[in-house]
Amino acid sequence: MDKIEIHYDEKPDLDNPVFIEGLPGIGNVGKLAAEHLIDQLKGKKFADIISKHFPPQVVIEDNGVVRLVDNQLYYAKRDGANQDLVILTGDYQGLTPEGQYELSDFILGVLKELKVKRIFTLGGYGIGRMIKKPRVLGAATEESLVKEMKKLGVVFSRNEPGAGIVGASGLLLGMAKYYGMKSVCLMGETSGYFVDPKSAQAVLEILAKILDVTVNYDELEAKAKQIDSITARLKEIEAKVDQDEDLGYIG
Amino acid sequence: MDKIEIHYDEKPDLDNPVFIEGLPGIGNVGKLAAEHLIDQLKGKKFADIISKHFPPQVVIEDNGVVRLVDNQLYYAKRDGANQDLVILTGDYQGLTPEGQYELSDFILGVLKELKVKRIFTLGGYGIGRMIKKPRVLGAATEESLVKEMKKLGVVFSRNEPGAGIVGASGLLLGMAKYYGMKSVCLMGETSGYFVDPKSAQAVLEILAKILDVTVNYDELEAKAKQIDSITARLKEIEAKVDQDEDLGYIG
Amino acid sequence: MDKIEIHYDEKPDLDNPVFIEGLPGIGNVGKLAAEHLIDQLKGKKFADIISKHFPPQVVIEDNGVVRLVDNQLYYAKRDGANQDLVILTGDYQGLTPEGQYELSDFILGVLKELKVKRIFTLGGYGIGRMIKKPRVLGAATEESLVKEMKKLGVVFSRNEPGAGIVGASGLLLGMAKYYGMKSVCLMGETSGYFVDPKSAQAVLEILAKILDVTVNYDELEAKAKQIDSITARLKEIEAKVDQDEDLGYIG
Amino acid sequence: MDKIEIHYDEKPDLDNPVFIEGLPGIGNVGKLAAEHLIDQLKGKKFADIISKHFPPQVVIEDNGVVRLVDNQLYYAKRDGANQDLVILTGDYQGLTPEGQYELSDFILGVLKELKVKRIFTLGGYGIGRMIKKPRVLGAATEESLVKEMKKLGVVFSRNEPGAGIVGASGLLLGMAKYYGMKSVCLMGETSGYFVDPKSAQAVLEILAKILDVTVNYDELEAKAKQIDSITARLKEIEAKVDQDEDLGYIG
Repeated sequence: MDKIEIHYDEKPDLDNPVFIEGLPGIGNVGKLAAEHLIDQLKGKKFADIISKHFPPQVVIEDNGVVRLVDNQLYYAKRDGANQDLVILTGDYQGLTPEGQYELSDFILGVLKELKVKRIFTLGGYGIGRMIKKPRVLGAATEESLVKEMKKLGVVFSRNEPGAGIVGASGLLLGMAKYYGMKSVCLMGETSGYFVDPKSAQAVLEILAKILDVTVNYDELEAKAKQIDSITARLKEIEAKVDQDEDLGYIG
Repeated sequence: MDKIEIHYDEKPDLDNPVFIEGLPGIGNVGKLAAEHLIDQLKGKKFADIISKHFPPQVVIEDNGVVRLVDNQLYYAKRDGANQDLVILTGDYQGLTPEGQYELSDFILGVLKELKVKRIFTLGGYGIGRMIKKPRVLGAATEESLVKEMKKLGVVFSRNEPGAGIVGASGLLLGMAKYYGMKSVCLMGETSGYFVDPKSAQAVLEILAKILDVTVNYDELEAKAKQIDSITARLKEIEAKVDQDEDLGYIG
Repeated sequence: MDKIEIHYDEKPDLDNPVFIEGLPGIGNVGKLAAEHLIDQLKGKKFADIISKHFPPQVVIEDNGVVRLVDNQLYYAKRDGANQDLVILTGDYQGLTPEGQYELSDFILGVLKELKVKRIFTLGGYGIGRMIKKPRVLGAATEESLVKEMKKLGVVFSRNEPGAGIVGASGLLLGMAKYYGMKSVCLMGETSGYFVDPKSAQAVLEILAKILDVTVNYDELEAKAKQIDSITARLKEIEAKVDQDEDLGYIG
Repeated sequence: MDKIEIHYDEKPDLDNPVFIEGLPGIGNVGKLAAEHLIDQLKGKKFADIISKHFPPQVVIEDNGVVRLVDNQLYYAKRDGANQDLVILTGDYQGLTPEGQYELSDFILGVLKELKVKRIFTLGGYGIGRMIKKPRVLGAATEESLVKEMKKLGVVFSRNEPGAGIVGASGLLLGMAKYYGMKSVCLMGETSGYFVDPKSAQAVLEILAKILDVTVNYDELEAKAKQIDSITARLKEIEAKVDQDEDLGYIG
């Protein structure tokens, strides 16, 4: 077994493909967004990437059959759009810095073969507090893209995120220039405490404008409501605990 | 020294061999089961696997002589059964994710040479509480095996284990398909707090049915009683400590 | 992508170049000093070093454009001095011991190509307490350099630093002999609790004498005042908290 | 730079050489013993081993000159004994399991070139409490050596040390058989809380008998007294603290 291996179900014939990455990360924003997009555009899985850089683990599917944890590539053909999509999601990112670099490098090699010229990486930007209306922050491989994104409502804010971008969403941008690819990272604001479908929706709304696709958000909104009701209940419990403790002190 | 090395005592001539893995893990269920099976079937060690992925450590045998920590391969010939066994146990699993992948890959290579076509991996499934009658959960490389196992009493339960299977018991399944081998993982429920001979017995009872071997469980039952008496004493001590503390508060 | 890669903007033609290293470390003394020197001598960046040994991360520049975290090489031409400078600074040092060795080895290879014969590494020496007038401690690759440095006010003190020198500032010295380069490490005393421009200035004052360059310290002094006012405020707050707590006990 | 490099000062011509390892470890017993033996037999350093598996660090010698942390090989010629010695000591052991294996393998390769056939590794056996008269425990590569050592007072005790032997002292034994070398490990009992010259002396006394060398222990005894007076003072301080606290409760 090589350090990283790709196993193709099929080699799709794609028209001017754009690549979208949404792997697990802060608030799982990128993964939620990528999975929702795959769902909405009826994406078809065409390859698995397995790697020694992932945890030594198998996932058990509902039918009792296992598969190695992996990253998965989907494509979505778009009739008449002259722009098909390749979407990456998966169970894990690489566990080590070296693994992260090697996986991003490997993926860019795969994309080059697929003749991808434009990349969008999706992620969350953790701000440590709950937020009503998440902004979508951006970063890009060149200034013309920054301008383009600003027009679409993406926020470019000095020192946000201050620590830069860690993981695949960052590396794919940073290494894209060695592959001659233009790349944008879209980061939805999120508390970082919960999976955040609302932030994923904010990111997708921007991406949908860029790609000119129609996306229905009912499912993400339903998930967001679930999360909201969980967090609300947690707050209630917390408030009650505080009250009880106060009474305790008085009693 | 290579990253992984196998040193053969002999190269056995095996008839239609089935492979069974029982390395250290949760509750040491797999290792206890594998060792008991070796003992019952008078297995003979035929190879040692040493590796830089194991701790840098030697074991001192009772006669004062050392050996590197390792994994060991045993075989058991079964007259007239047309199905010999190869059993793996050992001191450790690989210390790193990469080590885990490389060891499982290496072992599958060895099994291919031995013409193994069917694999059983044995392990524990930690549930965080003491349990009277451990169930045996399963996972497999294909649905026909799932059906087969269900008939024998193996439980396939959606989201159990939720985190998938970590380590050799999982990887050998996940990677088996690249070697054309059919594989089943049997996991005995266990608290995860102690070595668990009772869980090992539950796993072996299923495996004995599958392999059609007769196993005497006296020794495992004796070990289980030992563990039971230790845990009972621990509970007593704990109860006494609690009582003393309560008195202390009152006094 | 290789483990370490250098990407040249240009290959400068340098006259008898001396190398100065100032990477992040204790009190960021080396990095502050190197950056100030680049600023003062109008250094020009000529190469980026990227590596799998750095964190998997991109930095977002003020214009919204990303770059991989890296180490950067600058040169400064010095008219009539017959001694140009090559200065290394960067975002990170290697994350692992192996990474540290490989990066230092790589950099020495680059310096050999540039015909560097003399190296100065700059760093901090953490002493765990605030200090008014930081001394500059030294270490070197040969005794003649030790003598030379002592004359310029560098302190060589038995068992200081007791633990030796960790990281690039140490390794570049330790490995320099295999490349036939003479090398000195200058370490400014620092508390180790804050970035320390005062310590960086102390180091630079020595280095400026050695290299016979004129350096204006206004900016470092301004930074030092900022740090001083922050630490003073922290002390005030701490004192106030202590007082409040004392009152609390009394009340 | 390779992962491990040996740099020879000279290639000694040795007569039937025996190898002794004493690297840092529990109570620094092995290192103290090896250094004392080098001192007593006027050993001469003939090679340095540097490695990416050691910390990225230089040591500053008393004259202000640095050297990479390393392992060092000494030899001691013994007139008329028909048995010269090669002694290994150093600053560190390998930092990772893989590093430990590779360093031991490398050293065994060097020893093979030197035609070493017999190895003694020296270490401490931590028992977690202070001890008046440390026993010397043993382990060996074959039973005939166990018998030989028992006659000289080495203790072979079932399940001591229970965890086996970790690090170079263990690996050199475990891997010696692949190099056709006979090997014994001598472990002096030690609390494990302090460097332990008394334990080092106990180990050396056995080794001196085996090698038929005369060793003066004055220096080790002086060091042991120093340690004893430090531990005695610590106990006094502790007792005083306890007393003060007790008074506090009463008052």
